[in-house]
Amino acid sequence: MELDDQYFMQQALKEAQKALEEEEVPVGAVVVVGGRIIARAHNLTERLRDVTAHAEMQAITAAADFINGKYLVGCTLYVTLEPCIMCAGALFWSQLDRVVFAASDSKRGFLQAGVFLHPKTKVQSGLFANEAKVLIDSFFSKKRK
Amino acid sequence: MELDDQYFMQQALKEAQKALEEEEVPVGAVVVVGGRIIARAHNLTERLRDVTAHAEMQAITAAADFINGKYLVGCTLYVTLEPCIMCAGALFWSQLDRVVFAASDSKRGFLQAGVFLHPKTKVQSGLFANEAKVLIDSFFSKKRK
Repeated sequence: MELDDQYFMQQALKEAQKALEEEEVPVGAVVVVGGRIIARAHNLTERLRDVTAHAEMQAITAAADFINGKYLVGCTLYVTLEPCIMCAGALFWSQLDRVVFAASDSKRGFLQAGVFLHPKTKVQSGLFANEAKVLIDSFFSKKRK
Repeated sequence: MELDDQYFMQQALKEAQKALEEEEVPVGAVVVVGGRIIARAHNLTERLRDVTAHAEMQAITAAADFINGKYLVGCTLYVTLEPCIMCAGALFWSQLDRVVFAASDSKRGFLQAGVFLHPKTKVQSGLFANEAKVLIDSFFSKKRK
């Protein structure tokens, strides 16, 4: 893990917290390049009534807009939950440098599905996994009530 | 194949033709429910500088907006090329009834990647495959010049 990974994942957790407050599945993401956050996003599938409005998808689009180029060269995406197949597919196309995710998703995560990111992209996981999982568990336990 | 599949795939091909004219990878899609087209889209990754702007992603978002619900119940997506992993992931979340694609994509298609759509979703392929492939081949042969 790099020096600032903790800080950036905390920022992604703040985004997840916002999602929770808005009754969205609490997943947050930030995109960083050169030590600077260029995109922040959280899941908005309920508000937008759009299954594609995952935190990662919005972060990719916002980061590409900021960079003014579709390839996220030099960028790292921090996300609080292991990306799903859709988001992993988008991350593949974006060719970013690194993906750091917090909690694993054994049901819908891309790793168990055998989906690969771009060969250029390094993947790391586990940072603040408990904090990320607590948010998600609290969302679903509230839902079930 | 159902009675109107030919007509709807021709509409998707028209979208792909528009993409070609705009120097985008020529892939087009329409979403149909109850015999009516509720979304039309073509690839806009170059214009929007956004790797997520595939025809299918835009069609899913537009159809959900039309329906005012995130699940595309009763809907069929017609697309001129086999969806990639990202788009297949989005189609999974959308839980639509059917996906009909024209040309196969042996390199980036979801089938060879072993990715599954929702168990509710039927998949059919091959309708106007040649027409769809001619558009894509003409795009890439022009690119190489």
